Amino acid sequence: MATKKKNAFYAQSGGVTAVINASACGVIQTARANKDKIGKVYAGLNGIIGALTEDLIDTSKESAAAIAAYKLKSLEANRREYERLIEVFKAHDIGYFFYNGGGDSADTCYKVSQLSEAMGYPIQAIHVPKTVDNDLPITDCCPGFGSVAKYVAVSALEASFDVRSMAKTSTKVFVLEVMGRHAGWIAAAGGLIEDHGIPVVVLFPEIEFDEAKFLARVDALVKKHGYVTVVVSEGCHYPDGKFLAEQGTKDAFGHAQLGGAAPVVANMVKKAHGYKFHWAVADYLQRAARHVASKTDVKQAYELGAAAVKLALKGHNAVMPTVDRISDKPYKYRIGMAQLSKVANVEKFMPRDFITADGFGITEKCKRYLLPLIQGEDYPKYAGGVPVYQTLKNVPVPKKLAGFELK
Amino acid sequence: MATKKKNAFYAQSGGVTAVINASACGVIQTARANKDKIGKVYAGLNGIIGALTEDLIDTSKESAAAIAAYKLKSLEANRREYERLIEVFKAHDIGYFFYNGGGDSADTCYKVSQLSEAMGYPIQAIHVPKTVDNDLPITDCCPGFGSVAKYVAVSALEASFDVRSMAKTSTKVFVLEVMGRHAGWIAAAGGLIEDHGIPVVVLFPEIEFDEAKFLARVDALVKKHGYVTVVVSEGCHYPDGKFLAEQGTKDAFGHAQLGGAAPVVANMVKKAHGYKFHWAVADYLQRAARHVASKTDVKQAYELGAAAVKLALKGHNAVMPTVDRISDKPYKYRIGMAQLSKVANVEKFMPRDFITADGFGITEKCKRYLLPLIQGEDYPKYAGGVPVYQTLKNVPVPKKLAGFELK
Repeated sequence: MATKKKNAFYAQSGGVTAVINASACGVIQTARANKDKIGKVYAGLNGIIGALTEDLIDTSKESAAAIAAYKLKSLEANRREYERLIEVFKAHDIGYFFYNGGGDSADTCYKVSQLSEAMGYPIQAIHVPKTVDNDLPITDCCPGFGSVAKYVAVSALEASFDVRSMAKTSTKVFVLEVMGRHAGWIAAAGGLIEDHGIPVVVLFPEIEFDEAKFLARVDALVKKHGYVTVVVSEGCHYPDGKFLAEQGTKDAFGHAQLGGAAPVVANMVKKAHGYKFHWAVADYLQRAARHVASKTDVKQAYELGAAAVKLALKGHNAVMPTVDRISDKPYKYRIGMAQLSKVANVEKFMPRDFITADGFGITEKCKRYLLPLIQGEDYPKYAGGVPVYQTLKNVPVPKKLAGFELK
Repeated sequence: MATKKKNAFYAQSGGVTAVINASACGVIQTARANKDKIGKVYAGLNGIIGALTEDLIDTSKESAAAIAAYKLKSLEANRREYERLIEVFKAHDIGYFFYNGGGDSADTCYKVSQLSEAMGYPIQAIHVPKTVDNDLPITDCCPGFGSVAKYVAVSALEASFDVRSMAKTSTKVFVLEVMGRHAGWIAAAGGLIEDHGIPVVVLFPEIEFDEAKFLARVDALVKKHGYVTVVVSEGCHYPDGKFLAEQGTKDAFGHAQLGGAAPVVANMVKKAHGYKFHWAVADYLQRAARHVASKTDVKQAYELGAAAVKLALKGHNAVMPTVDRISDKPYKYRIGMAQLSKVANVEKFMPRDFITADGFGITEKCKRYLLPLIQGEDYPKYAGGVPVYQTLKNVPVPKKLAGFELK
């Protein structure tokens, strides 16, 4: 290691968000602005797998990056992979590891930092927060969440106006299923439409599902307003932990069928009250919806990517830049820093006081939290009627090590 | 009927579209610009029901209208309703009937014209085309379709990039279910993403579903590209007419479950090839998605509303303004006119030469047809992070007749 100027490795982990490339852009642009200290920024083909197989991409040939996922589990079970990672970093003179993801990748990032130290090739490992689930601790919010929250609020509002306009003679119950296996942040965004006059019931993973209470609430709202919108989290479950989506439905051949929570909820209401229903499952549409991204979210995603590089340049290791909220209205925040030891494998759930006493809605406190995050529109460029999204050149970096077999 | 200046009645029928209020606006503004010939424009509360119950809304107090649905079936079965309609029109000095909807409402409109003539109170009945299904004959396209086509193309593209980025280690098959019970126009819009490098299979209602051929096609595309996106129409069915969505799935209690086509298709692929899948059902989200409306569609919706009033002023009856395409590129069209006798109850399906020989994609000819319709963005205003949609005052018109019992 004769050079003082080290290269950097950047990878993304886990699912896509609408603003994931804004963070990559923040990392790469900030690194480029500090060429005296950081050499090249390498990205891994297929995320961290690329570091294992030494399939590095030279981002100096790119304007942005969009790379995917691979999880390294525990250090014990994956020691071979962790060691390989550090060998590849060493071979390519990589001294900075920027890992963009959620809780699992924060953990990986933390372990890379620890092990590299132990292996005598210390790497500054910085985690860049990113998860639509918004479940990382310490940071006020996570890039990707504001945009999916905006998508859910906009979509639920539009569909609710649709239902309202025809409720007298047609559909009275509309059910929208959203992501969030453990935390109800995304479902909470559906609760925002209440302030636009829509009767809405939100089903959170944090609240054990009570069928009788739910059916009574739906019935009361339909009787009062003529219709109701239900926003159900995919993680909504019964007291025994069984997900609503696992209702023991079987196909014609008797095989258990993987269905969504939305059709289960809709059919439940139909059976109890006879109301005509429609249901939608947004699935990937919600997290990939760059066309309706939150401007606030795009801005923060970039800022956190840039902040990660600045933290590295200041000599920090095993840390994550955070959004620290100063005030709700006007919305003010600063970029802070958290120790990865306190981030790794900690999930942040909806606080109980963000959910109404009956468990079916969001409180004013929750609305004050959510509203700033969905503010502003940041439209992509369009060509031919659809958004233009950058495609990479993926220029490979010549390999220096022997091959590595992925298990 | 001493006055020469008659009032007009406007109603919307059937489902919501992203641009439905642009047509209402076209009708009302054009009527207002011709105050010497057309008096007030009344709208019906809950669509044509409002004309039966005499719940008329005075749109002179409004800037736009968003009213819902009620279908009048055959003249024979509904003679009582048709006659009541004409009595209400007579009582309120209504000489113009503008009905905004799809095939069924074109038929109603036509019958109102015929019966009013027979009853000695002739009404000029003009149909304003509107259907996301795009299945009206004669007109080149229908307001509402361009926007849902844009929504489907944008959403399928975004979700496909999501899948592509993670296909090596995660989801390989993404299934998006779209509307279109009989005609595959909406599904066809999903085929547009092929030109953006996405391997896509489209399942149309016009093509009988062949499971073995479909599974082979999906497998070939996954083997070649690493992933595939499937866009399935809700109307996709087997040769015997059974919808894919009716797979005989039963819930834990043995009740037939109403599921979507998307989970059925996704599970079918999983069972045959073992590929990890995700699926989405857009349902109302697609047709209500004003936030990503096509500018071309918004423009045509307005123009057809305005044209309907102009046709009435020229003395036409039992007609519908149409979009007559002159050229694909540059896209040129003129507003034409069709006789309702030729529109009523005729469904326009995808021509066979719009679908590829193998039945799983769209042809260049189809792309040339679709592309102009999704061009241009027409963003709504936003406040608080979500679009601002106009809410009506719904100022009622005093009743003049005895009550009428809806059956």
